[in-house]
Amino acid sequence: MEFKIREGEIKDMASVLELIKELANFEKEPDAVEIDMYDLIKHGFSSKPSFKIFVAQMKDDIVGMVLFYPRFSTWKGQSLHLEDLIVREEKRGLGIGKALYTKFLEYAQKQKMNRVEWVVLDWNKNAIDFYEKTGAKILKDWRTVQMDKEALKEFVKNKK
Amino acid sequence: MEFKIREGEIKDMASVLELIKELANFEKEPDAVEIDMYDLIKHGFSSKPSFKIFVAQMKDDIVGMVLFYPRFSTWKGQSLHLEDLIVREEKRGLGIGKALYTKFLEYAQKQKMNRVEWVVLDWNKNAIDFYEKTGAKILKDWRTVQMDKEALKEFVKNKK
Repeated sequence: MEFKIREGEIKDMASVLELIKELANFEKEPDAVEIDMYDLIKHGFSSKPSFKIFVAQMKDDIVGMVLFYPRFSTWKGQSLHLEDLIVREEKRGLGIGKALYTKFLEYAQKQKMNRVEWVVLDWNKNAIDFYEKTGAKILKDWRTVQMDKEALKEFVKNKK
Repeated sequence: MEFKIREGEIKDMASVLELIKELANFEKEPDAVEIDMYDLIKHGFSSKPSFKIFVAQMKDDIVGMVLFYPRFSTWKGQSLHLEDLIVREEKRGLGIGKALYTKFLEYAQKQKMNRVEWVVLDWNKNAIDFYEKTGAKILKDWRTVQMDKEALKEFVKNKK
């Protein structure tokens, strides 16, 4: 059951998309994934990539991944946002998630980031316990606000 | 009481930092701002800027700003994150906040963003009402998780 962590490459993106869909399913939003493999390739491997990714490989299979990108806090300065940390369900309990998480945090420290940040579902107690045990803090009083493409179009059209 | 909205320039960053500190104070975190004017200049006006900013100018004064940067959603693709939308307290009620918000959303649509996103404090009812009225959604079950520089260092040191 050995695995290795390495930087993600274009050839991994089909497997990465599968992992993204598996996570959306776990988060009870099976239809939420609107991107495809070509979006991952286009935005992750251009001259100005939108994200960076490490994958966990076991024999020839991609069994996990961590995907992240820079943000800028007007309080703390440069930070990294962990967008997704995913391990294929049947490969959990082998330390793959911890290894990906550690790789991400080591990378953040090497890049002299002042903060790392992500979001968690409030009912995902296992994840919350894990994050808190590693020194992360859950902010209780902040809420995420989103405006989707349709609402954006509607607002811009009618604003006057 | 006329104002104009324009792109922020290096010369505005001293005023922008003042606005950032005013917001931190409102959010009951007066000591949270660790960056200085030079961080704003360095990270906002390099060849690979970490953020983009529009300011509201009234006569010679900067009285408001909106600061944002790209993110990447593994569900929706490219998005923009609104980090701060601030209007100086004594200039509220003149439509400056709405104008900055609109400018940001117009920019997002022009850039073909699939989503815009930000966070709000759960007790800031005025802000929440405003956002919802404009078509944004408050996600009730997601929580922000943060690991600061010290916790990051501690984790990386002791992980094994």
